[in-house]
Amino acid sequence: MRLGTLTIVGVGLIGGSVGLAARRRHLAGRVLGAGRQPATLERARQLGAIDEACPDVNAAVRRADLAVFCTPVDLIAEQVLAAAPGCSPGTVLTDAGSTKAAIVAALDGRLPDGVAFVGGHPLAGSEKRGPEHADADLFEGRLTVLTPTPRTDPAALERTAAFWQALGCRVKTMAPEEHDRALALTSHLPHLLASALAGVLPPELRELTATGFRDTTRVAAGDPSIWTGIFAQNRPAVLEALARLEERLGRFRAALEAGDADALTELLAQAKTVRDALGN
Amino acid sequence: MRLGTLTIVGVGLIGGSVGLAARRRHLAGRVLGAGRQPATLERARQLGAIDEACPDVNAAVRRADLAVFCTPVDLIAEQVLAAAPGCSPGTVLTDAGSTKAAIVAALDGRLPDGVAFVGGHPLAGSEKRGPEHADADLFEGRLTVLTPTPRTDPAALERTAAFWQALGCRVKTMAPEEHDRALALTSHLPHLLASALAGVLPPELRELTATGFRDTTRVAAGDPSIWTGIFAQNRPAVLEALARLEERLGRFRAALEAGDADALTELLAQAKTVRDALGN
Repeated sequence: MRLGTLTIVGVGLIGGSVGLAARRRHLAGRVLGAGRQPATLERARQLGAIDEACPDVNAAVRRADLAVFCTPVDLIAEQVLAAAPGCSPGTVLTDAGSTKAAIVAALDGRLPDGVAFVGGHPLAGSEKRGPEHADADLFEGRLTVLTPTPRTDPAALERTAAFWQALGCRVKTMAPEEHDRALALTSHLPHLLASALAGVLPPELRELTATGFRDTTRVAAGDPSIWTGIFAQNRPAVLEALARLEERLGRFRAALEAGDADALTELLAQAKTVRDALGN
Repeated sequence: MRLGTLTIVGVGLIGGSVGLAARRRHLAGRVLGAGRQPATLERARQLGAIDEACPDVNAAVRRADLAVFCTPVDLIAEQVLAAAPGCSPGTVLTDAGSTKAAIVAALDGRLPDGVAFVGGHPLAGSEKRGPEHADADLFEGRLTVLTPTPRTDPAALERTAAFWQALGCRVKTMAPEEHDRALALTSHLPHLLASALAGVLPPELRELTATGFRDTTRVAAGDPSIWTGIFAQNRPAVLEALARLEERLGRFRAALEAGDADALTELLAQAKTVRDALGN
């Protein structure tokens, strides 16, 4: 795939990585970075993630053949709705948000004729923020989930898939609600747990943590407002995932209280089987 | 410090790392590896972790100036009790077990005159097993907790501290029960949580995990029987730590159910503050 102009809205870790990957792979004639914070845009430009810094988001999206929104999930739909009316027919809009159902529902059937939105979520990231932490290889070998609806233009879906593949991703399509239920377990619940665990550590015990505590809580360093937005958009599925976890914790508690070594070993062995299957 | 003979009982990841670190630093004239599995001993010898493989544990400990037991926590006390009677006066015995109170209680005041046991726990490790994963730098900059009792010979405590320091560790002393309460929160609870989380992942969602899930569950790849032993020796403190975590999860649940974004952001922000303070 080769684009004339690629616009990236939000040039933090994800948007910056899109830019670095796109420029390294010569995916677009020009890469525009759009956002409200001039200092961040300028850093992204200096780091080589974008060719041009555009403080006017709508104007930058209108110049795009394809625009990708890498902003917090609670901003994406309104930004797309604001920018789409000025876009040329054939423009494809996609995003990198961690939730999909609310965003897709807010946009489905509400864009001008010829302008398509295809929900996307690259399963890549970090607890860090900002274009300084962007990485041209962030998407290499990762999975991007696309969440078309029955109204999604097949040609736009195909272009969006080709875009993420050009950045190095494998692509899988799922219904938005199915994506959100799955990610509640694979991403949102881990974040909640890591935060709960970090939250119970008294300051005087910090020196007694080692790699186990650090690995298990690493994602808790993520931006609280970003994650509040994600949880807010996926409440029922996160609560359902939390209920499953609480049930499993109850089994650990029962085995511990009963001093049932066999039950404990079996719970630990089941977990090890799952974890070993994931690799590093 | 310079030892004549150092004996390592159990030459897996921890014992093997002790051997590699001791040999690289010329800490002992001779490093003996003792254990029940000849194949593991031979691998440790080939990897340069020990000078000599000794299938007779008691005989190897009797030859030592200092012996360190790097075996599962439920074996350490009985191995020490079996080996100590043949040791020369002045021999120092220590261990690397993740729990301390049960081990120390089983040994305190029960060893022959002149033979000392000083409980130790280097806060270093990995979910991996075996001497193949041993690392000469594993202890570099890490903390080792020593758990003397009022009966512990001060000279033996000093020698044990010098031993772990010579491997690269900082050393801190704590009462055995205090160690176990702290580690229940900083190590045993994270393992339990990681295992519970891995345990609720259905196989069909494995492809939808990314670094967040993988980091948060990494320790769940640890050996189930080793961890059952740790949990069994520290049940009350682990149950108490689990109760704290359940209370915190309840606060997350309440904030989610109420759609209280401010409460959620505050919980996440508290966790971020703690996690940021730990560094990588």
